[in-house]
Amino acid sequence: MNTFGNIYRLTTFGESHGPALGGVIDGMPAGIVADTEFIQSELDRRRPGQGKLTTARNETDHIELLSGIFEGVTTGTPIGFIVRNTDHHSADYDAMKDLYRPSHADYTYQMKYGVRDYRGGGRTSARETLCRVVGGAFAKLALRQLGVTVEAHVTQVGKHILTGSKDEQQKQMEEIVSQVRAEGDSIGGIIAGVVSHCPVGLGQPVFGKLNAALAGAMMSINAAKGFDIGDGFDGVGQKGSQMNDEFCLNDGQIHTRTNHSGGIQGGISNGEDIRFRVLFKPVPTIMRQQNTVDKHGNEVTLEAKGRHDPCVLTRAVPIVEAMAAMVILDYYLLNKTTTI
Amino acid sequence: MNTFGNIYRLTTFGESHGPALGGVIDGMPAGIVADTEFIQSELDRRRPGQGKLTTARNETDHIELLSGIFEGVTTGTPIGFIVRNTDHHSADYDAMKDLYRPSHADYTYQMKYGVRDYRGGGRTSARETLCRVVGGAFAKLALRQLGVTVEAHVTQVGKHILTGSKDEQQKQMEEIVSQVRAEGDSIGGIIAGVVSHCPVGLGQPVFGKLNAALAGAMMSINAAKGFDIGDGFDGVGQKGSQMNDEFCLNDGQIHTRTNHSGGIQGGISNGEDIRFRVLFKPVPTIMRQQNTVDKHGNEVTLEAKGRHDPCVLTRAVPIVEAMAAMVILDYYLLNKTTTI
Amino acid sequence: MNTFGNIYRLTTFGESHGPALGGVIDGMPAGIVADTEFIQSELDRRRPGQGKLTTARNETDHIELLSGIFEGVTTGTPIGFIVRNTDHHSADYDAMKDLYRPSHADYTYQMKYGVRDYRGGGRTSARETLCRVVGGAFAKLALRQLGVTVEAHVTQVGKHILTGSKDEQQKQMEEIVSQVRAEGDSIGGIIAGVVSHCPVGLGQPVFGKLNAALAGAMMSINAAKGFDIGDGFDGVGQKGSQMNDEFCLNDGQIHTRTNHSGGIQGGISNGEDIRFRVLFKPVPTIMRQQNTVDKHGNEVTLEAKGRHDPCVLTRAVPIVEAMAAMVILDYYLLNKTTTI
Amino acid sequence: MNTFGNIYRLTTFGESHGPALGGVIDGMPAGIVADTEFIQSELDRRRPGQGKLTTARNETDHIELLSGIFEGVTTGTPIGFIVRNTDHHSADYDAMKDLYRPSHADYTYQMKYGVRDYRGGGRTSARETLCRVVGGAFAKLALRQLGVTVEAHVTQVGKHILTGSKDEQQKQMEEIVSQVRAEGDSIGGIIAGVVSHCPVGLGQPVFGKLNAALAGAMMSINAAKGFDIGDGFDGVGQKGSQMNDEFCLNDGQIHTRTNHSGGIQGGISNGEDIRFRVLFKPVPTIMRQQNTVDKHGNEVTLEAKGRHDPCVLTRAVPIVEAMAAMVILDYYLLNKTTTI
Repeated sequence: MNTFGNIYRLTTFGESHGPALGGVIDGMPAGIVADTEFIQSELDRRRPGQGKLTTARNETDHIELLSGIFEGVTTGTPIGFIVRNTDHHSADYDAMKDLYRPSHADYTYQMKYGVRDYRGGGRTSARETLCRVVGGAFAKLALRQLGVTVEAHVTQVGKHILTGSKDEQQKQMEEIVSQVRAEGDSIGGIIAGVVSHCPVGLGQPVFGKLNAALAGAMMSINAAKGFDIGDGFDGVGQKGSQMNDEFCLNDGQIHTRTNHSGGIQGGISNGEDIRFRVLFKPVPTIMRQQNTVDKHGNEVTLEAKGRHDPCVLTRAVPIVEAMAAMVILDYYLLNKTTTI
Repeated sequence: MNTFGNIYRLTTFGESHGPALGGVIDGMPAGIVADTEFIQSELDRRRPGQGKLTTARNETDHIELLSGIFEGVTTGTPIGFIVRNTDHHSADYDAMKDLYRPSHADYTYQMKYGVRDYRGGGRTSARETLCRVVGGAFAKLALRQLGVTVEAHVTQVGKHILTGSKDEQQKQMEEIVSQVRAEGDSIGGIIAGVVSHCPVGLGQPVFGKLNAALAGAMMSINAAKGFDIGDGFDGVGQKGSQMNDEFCLNDGQIHTRTNHSGGIQGGISNGEDIRFRVLFKPVPTIMRQQNTVDKHGNEVTLEAKGRHDPCVLTRAVPIVEAMAAMVILDYYLLNKTTTI
Repeated sequence: MNTFGNIYRLTTFGESHGPALGGVIDGMPAGIVADTEFIQSELDRRRPGQGKLTTARNETDHIELLSGIFEGVTTGTPIGFIVRNTDHHSADYDAMKDLYRPSHADYTYQMKYGVRDYRGGGRTSARETLCRVVGGAFAKLALRQLGVTVEAHVTQVGKHILTGSKDEQQKQMEEIVSQVRAEGDSIGGIIAGVVSHCPVGLGQPVFGKLNAALAGAMMSINAAKGFDIGDGFDGVGQKGSQMNDEFCLNDGQIHTRTNHSGGIQGGISNGEDIRFRVLFKPVPTIMRQQNTVDKHGNEVTLEAKGRHDPCVLTRAVPIVEAMAAMVILDYYLLNKTTTI
Repeated sequence: MNTFGNIYRLTTFGESHGPALGGVIDGMPAGIVADTEFIQSELDRRRPGQGKLTTARNETDHIELLSGIFEGVTTGTPIGFIVRNTDHHSADYDAMKDLYRPSHADYTYQMKYGVRDYRGGGRTSARETLCRVVGGAFAKLALRQLGVTVEAHVTQVGKHILTGSKDEQQKQMEEIVSQVRAEGDSIGGIIAGVVSHCPVGLGQPVFGKLNAALAGAMMSINAAKGFDIGDGFDGVGQKGSQMNDEFCLNDGQIHTRTNHSGGIQGGISNGEDIRFRVLFKPVPTIMRQQNTVDKHGNEVTLEAKGRHDPCVLTRAVPIVEAMAAMVILDYYLLNKTTTI
């Protein structure tokens, strides 16, 4: 269950305070140029400390590629990789050893496994997502050859829908996040993703619908609490006559006049842009005192300390892209088996 | 990809106008009483023609159980079942043979497979979901022994949030649907599901989070366009201090004071009610003329005819329950392998 | 675990004395003509009562195809099928209800599941293999388009290696089996299989080697106790210099001068004939008195009665072919995902 | 396809001359003491240069465990590990760059992937098996708690069946291998494995029979060409009356008087010793001149050079054990899902 995908498969491992995180990409098509600068740059997008919005911890997530590439090209054999953990302050976490932090996974992990690495969230740390970014980066390299692009961006912070130019949106976000930080609180929001130039025919009925795969992928990201596609929840009031996407001819090609469906019909891509949204809850770590219980069954108080991101939306953008890229490549490869 | 689940697995087959639909349930725990009346009653909940809200077609979905049960008890071997199709009017569909109906899967199936059974939607017909209901019914029988219940209900039709008593909600729904039917249109809405008394510890990090599994399951249902869990999209404006679920002791048991998370933390059930919602778009078949394209590349007009449900929400309720029941049982069984 | 394959997948169900056996073929490539006469003829090859070598029970294994085929062509959607059980004499088995027959699966099933359908072996009956023959028949239809053939034949009965013409071999086999039947005993032997014109490149390193897949497939057949490939156990005394298959050019094509490897090198097909053998033990049902234990822990005597095949090799031939055909088609489809 | 197992899963990566090999163990039960000395000692058993029988290359296969263990105990999260490659002489392989070595995987990899890491066999190197040994070592740690043991040993070198005491067998082996080395040739043989104290009930009918899983596992090892279980090919001449394992009571427990079946009946373990054999062909690298073809389609001569093991049986013993241990643990965990 630490493996994602059917043909293009990512298996990950690693805790936030262990020696390293890493993974294995299996099913990477052979003969793709392994652009290591691009892969590292994708990882860098996920790092904290890149702007005013995120904490200044200086994590250097340097990827080490261990296999599956020969003379700069993928060989079709599995790509192993690791990213070393540095900047450990494990002792900082001793106080949390027996505490169940509210809305974290401390309690559920303890109950499930009977043992857990409590340092920095262990396996439940969002640091795990860097492995997904690596898997997504390789998927993007393959999709690039097919002309498919995957892009995501923050569209909403809390109740505030971002508007205007990119710079204006950035400014709005910074203002909200600064305010939330000052309050010692945290905030969530929405990230929208778009897959463009997706070939027609991707998606495996009936349980492997492309939208089902995207939903499962997105909802596996830490703090994701909702997913919709096309007009989604915003379109709940629309009638069928308003929502149906009529087909038309465009330069002799079949297209839909509108795209309320978000590029997927009957679980299969129709060639239009695949548009989806992912809802993220506020991060549960806040700079306020909270009531909780410890593992010995005592009611205790959790004191706030340290520094934490009050909003992780910016850092989640490359993760959303990575998951989408892996799904699309996986289903592209699956679709090759539809006929002999 | 016509198989759902890891340990408890449902594989389905069948087109709406072929001889039969059916499936195989693999991984059903041995020693469970196979309450065939209950299973048939679940199927009956999905049938059309049960009230004012649905069409009067008289489909008799009689299940025939073919294996896996001996002297009334499940044996642990796979349960094969079929439901015969009756009331065929295949000739009705000749006119649609070459047409791509807007927001249906005609076009995407034709492009993916190069061939399709166009009669009544073929494999893409919602009739396929009756197999899910069978899979869910057996899952419920096993969950019943564990004290776990799964229930869903319609909470919203179009923009209208249902309120009041059950009877009042039913009346509101009927009024809206009658209106929509009179307009020759269709309407969607929202179904909410609740899993109660779920054991702590279900969910497989990191890609197999319980919420990810539920999302993938629900989004594989025909016409599902969105999913959220806990407070979901409605809670997007809440801060971390408002959303966090503090732990407390309740009769010596650890519980959360609130349940904004919807019963899942870090992808693992925490013992509170699992609350989720599924968004359904309006059914694409409407009683209005629509523009479209045929498979020869001609722009044509699709004339409305026949009778169709303008709203399938009521019929989707047992399907939502079935998918949830299968996920919960599957993850319950998976969780048994956490320790030796 | 009642599903076989990765892309081309067969899921089966059914007990020997239940209403029906059947299965679902998922991943069948779209656009293949579904030659139903061929499929039925493959099933007929597996039936008993076809010659002197097998019992005269008149099982009519009539296949009913329920989905996945439209206007005579596969549509890419799953193919459901059933074969009704007839000629039940379930009462015959009452005496065996509590007995553990030696070298049958009565004891292990009872211990594993706590319940079992004891009539005619239930799920463990070789009757289950007819579903494999259906899966194999469809695979052969697809392979036929690729020019690939799969053939098997009995090469050894007990210690006797069959020699001479087909008719002579048939005669030798009949003589041995008649002798064994007269003794109230049973006998096993060896079936050899050959896949010809297999494309180069099938096989997924490292755990999915083509030989590993074939071994797992063959060893899942009832009574199979051994498998080898190429020169196999007979070549154990040969040195590397004798076993190596040197490459050469043949009409400009690369071939191997010899084929000790059996058409697979490094787990991947090399284009030469894939040659393998499967060892079958004698069927455990014999017409002699045997000592055993019943489920209440009493030592008891099992009296022989009824009629049984003393040798099932002839009937196992189409099953060996079916399993091989499914593996080859599955790996052919997998191999299509090696590159974009 | 670089993943092995269902619940206990090993995913591996790495080429013989890349930076490192490694893998991820997923599904390791939580709460098992991670005896790192034992794990390293298992790896050491696989190393060359440990006796007269193997080459003197000094590979130091030092394992680095990266995750899944906290305070010396497994946490149930995936265990990532790497083993660095050292002692590279990649330049030695330049001459082989375009050559297809007889009975190696050079040709099939080139045809399948269009690109390959030719240095030392790349991914096809037996060096890959060290990852299996790690997976097997962790499995053994879990099985140890269940009282299950897995042991293998060489029983036959070429045609010579080893006899007498362990020391005598070692001496016989050394003599044969010395002789073969002097001839510049190589030799294969047979390894027998035994799983003792295996619980009753492991094995998933029908395709997941325990013997089928073991066969697939063993046949995925480099150079494995055959597998049998119980009396196997040696018992081909025996009748049913000789092969059947009668049940009896032993101290009130049900056992079989004989164990011709090799501990598995109907695909499910019956509590007796699981006995199987694996056939290995001679390694294809020999110190003799061979004819072959290069990738440009020229017939060429392959000159022998360097030092190579003429017999790898001794080194394959821990690999056979590892694969068996992983299968048994995997099926033990699967069997926990048979009932609720």
